[in-house]
Amino acid sequence: MTDPNRRIVPLDKAYRLLNHGPTVLVSAAHGGQRNIMAAAWAMPLDFSPPKVAVVLDKSTWTRKLIEASGTFALQVPTHAQADLTETFGSSSGLALTQDEGIDKFAAYGVGAFAGEATSAPLLEGCVAWLECRLLPEPAIQERYDLFLGEVVAAQADARVFADGRWNFEGHDELRTLHHVAGGHFILAGDAIDAHALPRAPRLKESG
Amino acid sequence: MTDPNRRIVPLDKAYRLLNHGPTVLVSAAHGGQRNIMAAAWAMPLDFSPPKVAVVLDKSTWTRKLIEASGTFALQVPTHAQADLTETFGSSSGLALTQDEGIDKFAAYGVGAFAGEATSAPLLEGCVAWLECRLLPEPAIQERYDLFLGEVVAAQADARVFADGRWNFEGHDELRTLHHVAGGHFILAGDAIDAHALPRAPRLKESG
Repeated sequence: MTDPNRRIVPLDKAYRLLNHGPTVLVSAAHGGQRNIMAAAWAMPLDFSPPKVAVVLDKSTWTRKLIEASGTFALQVPTHAQADLTETFGSSSGLALTQDEGIDKFAAYGVGAFAGEATSAPLLEGCVAWLECRLLPEPAIQERYDLFLGEVVAAQADARVFADGRWNFEGHDELRTLHHVAGGHFILAGDAIDAHALPRAPRLKESG
Repeated sequence: MTDPNRRIVPLDKAYRLLNHGPTVLVSAAHGGQRNIMAAAWAMPLDFSPPKVAVVLDKSTWTRKLIEASGTFALQVPTHAQADLTETFGSSSGLALTQDEGIDKFAAYGVGAFAGEATSAPLLEGCVAWLECRLLPEPAIQERYDLFLGEVVAAQADARVFADGRWNFEGHDELRTLHHVAGGHFILAGDAIDAHALPRAPRLKESG
């Protein structure tokens, strides 16, 4: 059953899904296997075409699936998924099964749906999904565990992301998660609008 | 006058200052000139030694100062500094002055203090400061505008960052800013603690 709140996000607005710095879940699939992990270290890298950067530890099975498939998805989990996000951050698909790997979707009984443009499984209940094509940069992948991707499809939950803006008012259970450490998260709070200041008058004259 | 709320953060906890994804201000100085700019695209890159990644557009004067000096600082601005942060994001030290560059600290009448380990000026009124040594990676600097650094000193405001945790309760004016687009920000909200889930029983037996 397709979630009626899920909407396509135009690619030139996709960076806004990550711009406020949420913790993400990274998923990938290859050769009939799939997995998902939490990552607090992800950010946009460019506007158009949209690109992203994410840090993936060498020990993770999701990283191996990304290297093999050349695609991955970043998805933005919610307050309601806090325990699940902590779980996906503290367990490893590899560690759970020594060397074979069962997928964490099955291990924790959560649903996934197919994306628009990649094989990466997308977790139900999130508020944003970015499907990405890996931009291979072997030197920085090896040296810094840093992976770059081009966003090739994006979706978001229209209840909290509309007209290129996040607004969580009235949807506390859908607030994004911002990990600090050890299962401690800051939730996305109120929205504000800021306005550029005039320059100091003295300097304006001599500008 | 030194701010009595400012405390040294141990380097192995420095990643926690950026882990929840705040928008940062990037500052640098070289040859008697200094500048500061806003960047929503910054994240931790490693725990120990702590490293960071930040995206710096080729048009920015701050980037030129970083390339020349080999050091920079990331600082975390607050709700009270929202207009200033928007200003530092929408103006350029270069554009303000054609080709010579006056510094934005002076142009907007804000104070800076000296760091512990680098020449980068640190903006007063922020809630965290990370002084960094540039890790030169010319290929990705040129191709992706992506700059990496090692954190060599860190400080934070003890009213909202203590024992390796952010907590903004009772300090609304010190909440961190998380930029979405065009001066629209999400403020850091409530803190929550999540707990890892048990695996689905069926699979636990076969694990």
